[in-house]
Amino acid sequence: MTTSTSDSALPAIQALQAELGPGAVFIAADVPARNRNDYSGIGPTAPLAMVRPADTAGVAVALRICHTHGVAVVPQGGLTGLCGGGRAGAHEVALSLERLVGIQEIDTASATMTVLAGTPLEVVQKAAAEAGFFCPLDLGARGSCAIGGNLSTNAGGNRVIRYGMARDMVLGLEAVLADGTVMTSLNKMIKNNAGFDLKHLFIGSEGTLGIITRIVLRLFPKPASTMVAMFAADDYATVLKLLSAARNGLGPTLSAFEVMWPDYWAMATRRVRGVRNPFAGDPRSEKDDADAYGAYVLVEALGTDAAQDAPRFQAWLEGLLEDGTVPNAVVSQSLADEKAFWGVRDACAEFHQLWPGHLAFDIGLPVTAMDDYARRCKAAITAQLPGCEAVFYGHIGDGNVHIVTYQSGVPAQPKDAVEEIVYGLVREYGGTVSAEHGIGTLKRRWLAHARSPEQIALMRTLKAAMDPKNILNPGKVI
Amino acid sequence: MTTSTSDSALPAIQALQAELGPGAVFIAADVPARNRNDYSGIGPTAPLAMVRPADTAGVAVALRICHTHGVAVVPQGGLTGLCGGGRAGAHEVALSLERLVGIQEIDTASATMTVLAGTPLEVVQKAAAEAGFFCPLDLGARGSCAIGGNLSTNAGGNRVIRYGMARDMVLGLEAVLADGTVMTSLNKMIKNNAGFDLKHLFIGSEGTLGIITRIVLRLFPKPASTMVAMFAADDYATVLKLLSAARNGLGPTLSAFEVMWPDYWAMATRRVRGVRNPFAGDPRSEKDDADAYGAYVLVEALGTDAAQDAPRFQAWLEGLLEDGTVPNAVVSQSLADEKAFWGVRDACAEFHQLWPGHLAFDIGLPVTAMDDYARRCKAAITAQLPGCEAVFYGHIGDGNVHIVTYQSGVPAQPKDAVEEIVYGLVREYGGTVSAEHGIGTLKRRWLAHARSPEQIALMRTLKAAMDPKNILNPGKVI
Repeated sequence: MTTSTSDSALPAIQALQAELGPGAVFIAADVPARNRNDYSGIGPTAPLAMVRPADTAGVAVALRICHTHGVAVVPQGGLTGLCGGGRAGAHEVALSLERLVGIQEIDTASATMTVLAGTPLEVVQKAAAEAGFFCPLDLGARGSCAIGGNLSTNAGGNRVIRYGMARDMVLGLEAVLADGTVMTSLNKMIKNNAGFDLKHLFIGSEGTLGIITRIVLRLFPKPASTMVAMFAADDYATVLKLLSAARNGLGPTLSAFEVMWPDYWAMATRRVRGVRNPFAGDPRSEKDDADAYGAYVLVEALGTDAAQDAPRFQAWLEGLLEDGTVPNAVVSQSLADEKAFWGVRDACAEFHQLWPGHLAFDIGLPVTAMDDYARRCKAAITAQLPGCEAVFYGHIGDGNVHIVTYQSGVPAQPKDAVEEIVYGLVREYGGTVSAEHGIGTLKRRWLAHARSPEQIALMRTLKAAMDPKNILNPGKVI
Repeated sequence: MTTSTSDSALPAIQALQAELGPGAVFIAADVPARNRNDYSGIGPTAPLAMVRPADTAGVAVALRICHTHGVAVVPQGGLTGLCGGGRAGAHEVALSLERLVGIQEIDTASATMTVLAGTPLEVVQKAAAEAGFFCPLDLGARGSCAIGGNLSTNAGGNRVIRYGMARDMVLGLEAVLADGTVMTSLNKMIKNNAGFDLKHLFIGSEGTLGIITRIVLRLFPKPASTMVAMFAADDYATVLKLLSAARNGLGPTLSAFEVMWPDYWAMATRRVRGVRNPFAGDPRSEKDDADAYGAYVLVEALGTDAAQDAPRFQAWLEGLLEDGTVPNAVVSQSLADEKAFWGVRDACAEFHQLWPGHLAFDIGLPVTAMDDYARRCKAAITAQLPGCEAVFYGHIGDGNVHIVTYQSGVPAQPKDAVEEIVYGLVREYGGTVSAEHGIGTLKRRWLAHARSPEQIALMRTLKAAMDPKNILNPGKVI
């Protein structure tokens, strides 16, 4: 299934130059540095070429040519992926969507935005806000990542518990198939059961089944109020009680439920510069031994009434303190508090300064299994890799846990050993090896820990049917 | 692609009897009446046989045998489909899921239910409620329809604006493929990006790509309060303003936004027995001419606080009356009011008594186009079919309109002529020929009005890849 480029690449490149124009084709050493790498931490690549078509028709031309000549194509958006899905090798053409940028339409009655796939997420968010709407998709790379890339990896983020994944925000899309066929379905209707819902093939498949060029996004009402609280919990059973209380008491306004295990809390509040402990003065939160709290939970709600929501949220929280559900809790009283509370949760972005080259994992687990998993995972890491630290945190309401590990005093982090532990336990607990970052190349060898042979076989059937020449992002995902 | 049964059916039947046991196989005249028809209004069929396996393994056995012998299989759930998707012909084996009934697990921490596909929706709803949760999927046939059928047609209903379609409530599923392979993915995690999300292939594809046997449903918190109001609007522009005000003012509590055009309103409130006009005494609502209101809107919100939600809803409604957004509105003050308001919207279920054999349509349109569509559609019907009445209503926030037409004094309703008008305009406005009922056989000829040749070609590619012998519900959808 690998493509031979030695005899076919030159005519393909010549055809791409002839049909797209020389300004849209960069060859070998002329490929810009930006198109040679992503955020996966692997070294740069040397793609055969980079093309940057100006529009959907150009993407179709590029795919038709590459399909004819059997040259592999690697779609590239903002190149912020963490699993290597956007990396183009020496025999592959990088197809950058950097010129497919812009908002085509905002339909206020349908509450939809039609946008080109290369548009940065932050531009989408701002355009939605300017039109009086809210685009809830949000992640750290918002300024660089492209909305098309967000869809191709089915991006998650902090507000999935309320608004769902990127997939759930898409009503329609346009994609170019392996042979250059343009499939346009810019549907704006929430209900459309006319045959198979094809958009789901392209969302989350990392460019292996087609290249997304345009998207119809669902927009949401702007929240009128934001309430944030930090809870301390005695143990994981308390966390589960709090999750149930948040679902019932906050209902659909619940927008984040972020759990931090004690080791994460200690690392974030004591070792990361500029992070304030919301429970400063409470001796239990200063510990990381058996006397410390069992977990910390950041809860956020987005409401519709600035005057009434805050007192209601406060009353809900006080009820949980009064009835003893939680031992301690603080509610944000200002934007500064909000930032401080989120600052603890977001401190993980600064761990690389303390733990350069640390390993990071994005796994999914059934909610009930998470604490058992965390304990066993940490115990196994500590036992097998002396001195290796591991901290756990995540979007618990969505079944998503992140893990960061670091062994000091070693020439290279023990990646294989930690992966064996982390993903081995994932398999045991029926979890997933990728909750929100995708598979790319980095997690491909672990796919079978989360998907059955029958599922992987069906993925291959789909891939073979939709891309029989295996030119679309080959070697990624499966 | 048609299957020849003359030489292959007998050994297949014998194998089914031998492997499933004679009590699970009914042949020809022994096929129960229930398995010979659905709610589509077409006459009964005479299936070759009906099999009713006891479990997933039995479904796998049945498919393996039928696949080997090239015998077509038509999956059957509650047989309440309106488009003919569950009808089995003379050369086809009906595969009933009626014995795959029961709730396997309710996981309160994950807020999920694992359920067998043949379980009636109402059983699912009650089990969720008993466990302290809410299953928001709801439709008229709840007592008879099976949850597997709800998924295979991606059922909608009244609360899609808040909770989404059936698809949006599914976290995992088990499906049996054409050759009998069992693909089990009982995922409970909201986030799982390990490769392609295969469940979407089986949801909404009406049993043409596989047979769903088990499902993991997402459960939701029980609403603590229900608020219902009926609004009168001067015109469709007012309806759009109200939709925007409802989205912004009620936020995520908005659970229904049901629009009724004046002809529907007149029919429901004046001609259907037992329906009360919530605006009784307001002369404009008694008219159906140019002086009548331009539209009526039922708005429902489901809240989290019984004490505070109702006054807040009332204040929101009063604000819209005070600032002149709407000319009239009434808010329900009792369960009896709630039922009366919904009674106007649900009166369509009784139209068959006044209009026996009427035609009914389920289409989707961009929200802005709906009123233009309704006017032009009605004008065309009236012009081409003298005396033919047509009423319009629907779930506007979801882009879904229903149409009921009736011509009195004719031996048969002018189905072809009305379909030409209804679906011809759907194509012109970029709508869909099926918003929530699926395609089955009845709408197959209109699929190309809502899907492009490229989309239909890709559907065929998927069908050929996943069911190369075309034994899974052949002739349905595509």
